[in-house]
Amino acid sequence: MSPLRVAIAGLGTVGTGLVRIITSDALRAPMQIVGVTARDQTRDRGVDLSAYEWFADPVAMAEAPGTDVFVELIGGDEGIAKDAIEAALASGKHVVTANKALIAKHGLALAALAEEKGVALRFEAAVAGGIPVIRALRDGLAGTDVKALQGVLNGTCNFILASMEAGASYADALAEAQRIGFAEADPSFDVGGIDAAQKLAILAALAFGVMPPVEAIGPLGIDTASPADLAAAEELGLRMKLVAILRQDGGDLAARVAPALVPLTSALDIGGGGENIVVADAEPLGRVAFSGPGAGGGPTASSLMADLVAVARGATGPAFGKPAADIDANPSVTQDAEPVPHFLRVLVEDRPGVLARLTEILAETSISVETIRQRSVVADGDVEVVITTHAAPTSALSQAATSIEALASVTSTPSVYPILREATSS
Amino acid sequence: MSPLRVAIAGLGTVGTGLVRIITSDALRAPMQIVGVTARDQTRDRGVDLSAYEWFADPVAMAEAPGTDVFVELIGGDEGIAKDAIEAALASGKHVVTANKALIAKHGLALAALAEEKGVALRFEAAVAGGIPVIRALRDGLAGTDVKALQGVLNGTCNFILASMEAGASYADALAEAQRIGFAEADPSFDVGGIDAAQKLAILAALAFGVMPPVEAIGPLGIDTASPADLAAAEELGLRMKLVAILRQDGGDLAARVAPALVPLTSALDIGGGGENIVVADAEPLGRVAFSGPGAGGGPTASSLMADLVAVARGATGPAFGKPAADIDANPSVTQDAEPVPHFLRVLVEDRPGVLARLTEILAETSISVETIRQRSVVADGDVEVVITTHAAPTSALSQAATSIEALASVTSTPSVYPILREATSS
Repeated sequence: MSPLRVAIAGLGTVGTGLVRIITSDALRAPMQIVGVTARDQTRDRGVDLSAYEWFADPVAMAEAPGTDVFVELIGGDEGIAKDAIEAALASGKHVVTANKALIAKHGLALAALAEEKGVALRFEAAVAGGIPVIRALRDGLAGTDVKALQGVLNGTCNFILASMEAGASYADALAEAQRIGFAEADPSFDVGGIDAAQKLAILAALAFGVMPPVEAIGPLGIDTASPADLAAAEELGLRMKLVAILRQDGGDLAARVAPALVPLTSALDIGGGGENIVVADAEPLGRVAFSGPGAGGGPTASSLMADLVAVARGATGPAFGKPAADIDANPSVTQDAEPVPHFLRVLVEDRPGVLARLTEILAETSISVETIRQRSVVADGDVEVVITTHAAPTSALSQAATSIEALASVTSTPSVYPILREATSS
Repeated sequence: MSPLRVAIAGLGTVGTGLVRIITSDALRAPMQIVGVTARDQTRDRGVDLSAYEWFADPVAMAEAPGTDVFVELIGGDEGIAKDAIEAALASGKHVVTANKALIAKHGLALAALAEEKGVALRFEAAVAGGIPVIRALRDGLAGTDVKALQGVLNGTCNFILASMEAGASYADALAEAQRIGFAEADPSFDVGGIDAAQKLAILAALAFGVMPPVEAIGPLGIDTASPADLAAAEELGLRMKLVAILRQDGGDLAARVAPALVPLTSALDIGGGGENIVVADAEPLGRVAFSGPGAGGGPTASSLMADLVAVARGATGPAFGKPAADIDANPSVTQDAEPVPHFLRVLVEDRPGVLARLTEILAETSISVETIRQRSVVADGDVEVVITTHAAPTSALSQAATSIEALASVTSTPSVYPILREATSS
């Protein structure tokens, strides 16, 4: 078998990590690097790149002869990354990428181009870092009918929420995450749930054969959570995670990316670092879970390597497991309306009748209370009320929260979070 | 794409489940059943088999023209199952099987035959039921250097141990498992660790490129565990599992299948039913975990279907990810000698100096005590001593246990189990 000739565009942590693996001894398939490109040729990256042709222009590298696979690590959902991938596919080269934003937005068009040219488009590294969840859904669960997916797909949110559990404010937790490289300078994609929604759209294409635009998923972020919410939840044995959900809902796909509370015994209660998890319910399989490092140079490079090894072994099947033309790029998406228990926390003035009024509003909205706890807040004389409800639609809770906030004796915006009890680890 | 023509040998729960999936609408690849065989043609299996050619002889079905894939669900590591698979491969047919015993024993020879004939040999259902762990190791981790694997791979042991935690004797727990179909009439393969060792041998071939014979792994079973051991462990926050371990140990492969105690927070502390888990540590990936139903008709049929879909998509790569000739069928295997903490429980007569003698023996064997607890056993006036140690080789503990058992004041055979703290779920 002649070595697979690889060109790498983008030489940050992931790209240089990939160079290190390919040039190490532990390879499972013969492979050689033939070209590299990055914005700055002069920077010392700690790996010897002198043996590889340097290209100033990624598109020129993508089109150059003598390459089998183009690895895209440039980033961005338009522009040079897209141009280079299109050029590579159009000139008959396989493409391996870690670019979730691009795949979520243009994956189907690129997959169609790859099919037309008979080459592979692979993106294991785009979702859940080092966890081989793309191939698990595309290949491993290909014999099943997937009913639902739940995932924790964003390590930045894990980190910030864990810091807030330890008492940090949202702003301080975010600043610390940025300082140690766990959050971007512009964190809005991560903390706003957009990154998780992009990943969820890709998983939807693999598991359900439909690829909703990120806007249709309408993600909610963690930026409105408070340390007081997390502390109150923890007393109930609950922890906040940014949870991504897909569910077959009749003919529609129900999707949700939003902060939710999970029991400490839940499989979704993964660590406060870069770990990700995907839990799938499928017929007649049952429930399977895949967890591991969701970000970072090593895990991402590992997934890129897995894709390169697959290409070297001749895997050129359709990127999403079926022809791109068979995947609905604009499906009807509903917000997940499955009734679940909820957590509601609100501050009220310490005077008679307030609690009765709160529970009346819940009763009027057909929400049944499971537990209720009130206690004085030392700082300002207000009373903190924490309610957990029996299963109810999130829309009903939102309506009740609006009515509660309008009460004269209520002094905070109510915090409302769904409680997801079902994804237990056993 | 013309439909994949499938012949199914063996029509128990799994085989009929597979018939149901193939004849359902939810198929991801065109497929049709062309032949079936089982011991008893007359039995009503609840599925309509009238449209398929019935073969009395599995080997004749394997050799018959007009079939693309032969699905082997006969069982047994020799005899008709092996003959039929060899016949199918020799006549140029792909083979899909759930037969772990056969793959563990003859997998490399069969894989070599499949390579020679340019056909696929796939066995996702042979290990961990519905969890796509075979392809996770073969493909998903193909870009990494796997350093260690830990797994809980036998649902029968899970069930029996959970019953014993609830107070049942080993004999009663086993009888109940047999009554509800969780254990075979001859349970020795499951409770003796042989089933788990067969699965571990297959995982070793995929992850480490060596395939130790089951005898080289030398599995220990759960049949010597007592409810009193489990109760004492539970008070320490530990639960017993039959744990299978593989580890790179210099040039050798260290392997172990034995009961071990894991913290309730460990990823290995999966439920008391048919769930399995595999945890892999790989460079530069980190730790990934795969869990789900490890047995049962639906999960097994799901994995068989995944293999059939892969074959329909043209996957004919080597069964173990690399040529069979490159896999060492007789590797040097050491018992895993990694020092870990241990649990030791023993009954002693209630008289002065016994505890001092126990701790002296441990000290003489260079075993450092972490915790010690003694209390009266109500039933017979003996004293129960439960010791946890700091990390020490299991061989040192065995030596100490022998010395302890020889003491005149010791009234029970000491129970010794390794404590595996590292595979935390976060």
